[in-house]
Amino acid sequence: MRVWFLDGGSILVPHASLLWNVPGADVRIPCFSVLVEHDGGLVLFDTGFDLEHTQRVLPFEQPEQTEERTIPAQLALCCCAPSDVTTLVNSHLHFDHVGGNKLVPDADVVLHEKELAQARDHEPFEYFGYSDTSWDGEGVRFDTVSGDAELVPGIRLFETPGHSVGHLSAIVGSMLFPFDVVATTRGLEREIQSGFHIDPVAGLRSIRRVKELAAEHGAEVYLSHDPDAWQSYRHAPDFYEVSA
Amino acid sequence: MRVWFLDGGSILVPHASLLWNVPGADVRIPCFSVLVEHDGGLVLFDTGFDLEHTQRVLPFEQPEQTEERTIPAQLALCCCAPSDVTTLVNSHLHFDHVGGNKLVPDADVVLHEKELAQARDHEPFEYFGYSDTSWDGEGVRFDTVSGDAELVPGIRLFETPGHSVGHLSAIVGSMLFPFDVVATTRGLEREIQSGFHIDPVAGLRSIRRVKELAAEHGAEVYLSHDPDAWQSYRHAPDFYEVSA
Repeated sequence: MRVWFLDGGSILVPHASLLWNVPGADVRIPCFSVLVEHDGGLVLFDTGFDLEHTQRVLPFEQPEQTEERTIPAQLALCCCAPSDVTTLVNSHLHFDHVGGNKLVPDADVVLHEKELAQARDHEPFEYFGYSDTSWDGEGVRFDTVSGDAELVPGIRLFETPGHSVGHLSAIVGSMLFPFDVVATTRGLEREIQSGFHIDPVAGLRSIRRVKELAAEHGAEVYLSHDPDAWQSYRHAPDFYEVSA
Repeated sequence: MRVWFLDGGSILVPHASLLWNVPGADVRIPCFSVLVEHDGGLVLFDTGFDLEHTQRVLPFEQPEQTEERTIPAQLALCCCAPSDVTTLVNSHLHFDHVGGNKLVPDADVVLHEKELAQARDHEPFEYFGYSDTSWDGEGVRFDTVSGDAELVPGIRLFETPGHSVGHLSAIVGSMLFPFDVVATTRGLEREIQSGFHIDPVAGLRSIRRVKELAAEHGAEVYLSHDPDAWQSYRHAPDFYEVSA
């Protein structure tokens, strides 16, 4: 399988939110999507944020996203068109993971059934998280899971709640993506989740599950919002090659 | 009944922790205790932070507490000695509410039974909150409650979890103390709890309960960590007079 990291730009968040309650200066964090080519087609994990939405609804996060960092432009770097994507997996439905869903309208959307329900009827404090509702609509084909699932051989999804009620992590070959279970390397090492969450007790259990999964599968962990780690990853059009 | 606010100094916290995930500059927040004289004796609510402990374990909160702002000095302003306090109520057992417990060793300590258990066996992310364990020990007489309770006529305790598992709020006459259910006026108005919590869903329900209690009892709400509101309160030796 080939795995590409698609650069989706960056946003600014308080340090005490990125690393829950730990003081520090605001941090500009990357947002990225992951494209996987396997025998049966193209799987896209998450779609980053929509620049216009974020500028309008969350201007305090000071989003930065050039035209080259939109989903269509990033897919083009991998020689694909949005219509080539067969499956779109949403780790969860926060604005910085669903902004480009509407640009991939032909894909089946795989997500946790609890996440779908919660995004449509969320807690007030989840307002900003679920503020971009452009992923939803009549034409969208949702394919919900209710726990761990094998998407295709070599791609597995794992139920990891806490950051959101129906959050999914993924293993692709030997690469583990905890998405927003834990945002940074320091968070993973110290088991500190971000301040964006609905159930921190479950969130901590999910961090530990991610570590166990990494050990069990001999997988390397790729963090979702770590500016330093991001610099060390290969960015599209460069890619990783892994076995199913 | 007479009600005194005892100034316990201040600490510095990230804005996104004081008002959960809301960006802004760090805020220096007051910590105070409440002393109530009623027919049967003297009730003290919380005991602020211990300066030495906070400097050592949480130096990043930059604690400030002059000798005049310790529990014995503040009680002296009200013409009482620590040994005059008959009952000590801990809204919860975080370091900034228990630091002076050891200085009031003769009082019965009233608190929620879940809080007592949790403080002794807490989640890792509650470490700093429960880091001062000097409230515990063999000689201490705990008098636990398991829900709402009338302490004495005119003083009622209300179960308000979220910030901690066994958090209690109090009504004293016409004064309502939500303690850390919600830290600031802005938080109360916008129903935003602090980023220091264990169950934000319960925490939001507790904010709403506080509002309902205030309406039901025609009580005024006094916020625990609001620097502006604090300036508007009467400070010991000045006091409030309320009916039981």
